[in-house]
Amino acid sequence: MNLPLVGTGTDVHAFDTDESTPLWVAGLEWPGYVGLSGHSDGDVVAHAAADALFSATGTGDLGSNFGVDRPDMAGASGVRILSEAVEIIRSRGYEVGNIAVQLIGNKPKFSSRREEANSVLSKAAGAPVTVTATTTDGLGLTGRGEGVAAIATALVYKR
Amino acid sequence: MNLPLVGTGTDVHAFDTDESTPLWVAGLEWPGYVGLSGHSDGDVVAHAAADALFSATGTGDLGSNFGVDRPDMAGASGVRILSEAVEIIRSRGYEVGNIAVQLIGNKPKFSSRREEANSVLSKAAGAPVTVTATTTDGLGLTGRGEGVAAIATALVYKR
Amino acid sequence: MNLPLVGTGTDVHAFDTDESTPLWVAGLEWPGYVGLSGHSDGDVVAHAAADALFSATGTGDLGSNFGVDRPDMAGASGVRILSEAVEIIRSRGYEVGNIAVQLIGNKPKFSSRREEANSVLSKAAGAPVTVTATTTDGLGLTGRGEGVAAIATALVYKR
Repeated sequence: MNLPLVGTGTDVHAFDTDESTPLWVAGLEWPGYVGLSGHSDGDVVAHAAADALFSATGTGDLGSNFGVDRPDMAGASGVRILSEAVEIIRSRGYEVGNIAVQLIGNKPKFSSRREEANSVLSKAAGAPVTVTATTTDGLGLTGRGEGVAAIATALVYKR
Repeated sequence: MNLPLVGTGTDVHAFDTDESTPLWVAGLEWPGYVGLSGHSDGDVVAHAAADALFSATGTGDLGSNFGVDRPDMAGASGVRILSEAVEIIRSRGYEVGNIAVQLIGNKPKFSSRREEANSVLSKAAGAPVTVTATTTDGLGLTGRGEGVAAIATALVYKR
Repeated sequence: MNLPLVGTGTDVHAFDTDESTPLWVAGLEWPGYVGLSGHSDGDVVAHAAADALFSATGTGDLGSNFGVDRPDMAGASGVRILSEAVEIIRSRGYEVGNIAVQLIGNKPKFSSRREEANSVLSKAAGAPVTVTATTTDGLGLTGRGEGVAAIATALVYKR
């Protein structure tokens, strides 16, 4: 293994005005919550994780890899976006060390499904993905309940 | 030593409406400033640092480790939260490489006490903790003076 | 090489009320956009990158290194700030592994000039610097178009 490279990624999505939109966060569906807006399922945790991989490796970003040139990715799930991101960076000669993501927001109540989220995302990435959660004491866009945010960091290795 | 694992943590606390609340940030008391709200002392720097350790190691997060199941931690100081977090991850077989935290906010004026903060938090963690500080040009929740935020990253090693 | 150390840095600048101010972001000038306020050129990407280096190495921060004691840095470009930051940490015995920065904001439209930005900043740092970009779904200070933000992480090594 060579020296590690570190990357960073954040994502923010607003809650959808359509209250029938399902909520997907951290690779899981959260019944009983209103979902997030966006062309994809709005999974901020998976998106931040994928962007941290692109960031560490210098292989563009979420927009440049999965934007208009990839119509097959329109509406893609967070799990698929993360697994495709891993495939892209592996094809450039990188391996994932680990990915750590923090979910920032009032909803969903994350703690009881942490292990499930870690398991689904780690399987998608083929490497350890850990998810933590916090709130912002009622302040800012997440504290006011306008949306949710995620912040991710990742270590990768050049083969 | 094995390969490093990276983690991330952020925290936000509002300034307390009770102006007699003391301000604790980065393991230090800041006389002359109004403190932060929260069950603990609201030390965003120490909390973000602790969460970055949990994040890197996949051992839950601040809420799951120090929440309602740990009544002994109610009102705990930032220094105690950080040192307990290190104890928890060491008991799972990890060692701290380093922790880096940035304080984001208008108050307190941090620079003159940086070395003191680094020293107190590094002692609590048993590893290098470095604290930087910035402002947000008057924008956002910290720029409007509603509260302060902190962002942390950490490297840990599996023994 | 010794073990790596990780650092973090963020920066936020408001758009200038003077519409003739040029926009500098990620070491590049962006014709046709209103610039950012600040004593320097307001290059949030370069500033976050420099602060991540100070953070990882415990050598103060942007304010303490380039503040009032360094009048020669007043109005300094982002490229100069980053290259000076690297010089400072190298003089303390550290080498840069890599720096990863995410630009967060509605403007400028970043994607088409990513390679140019990566090249200019990597040259300034003498090490790989990668820049990604995202938006916040219309939320928060960047979503409302009040300013732009950047978040950076870096790995450094003690010689």
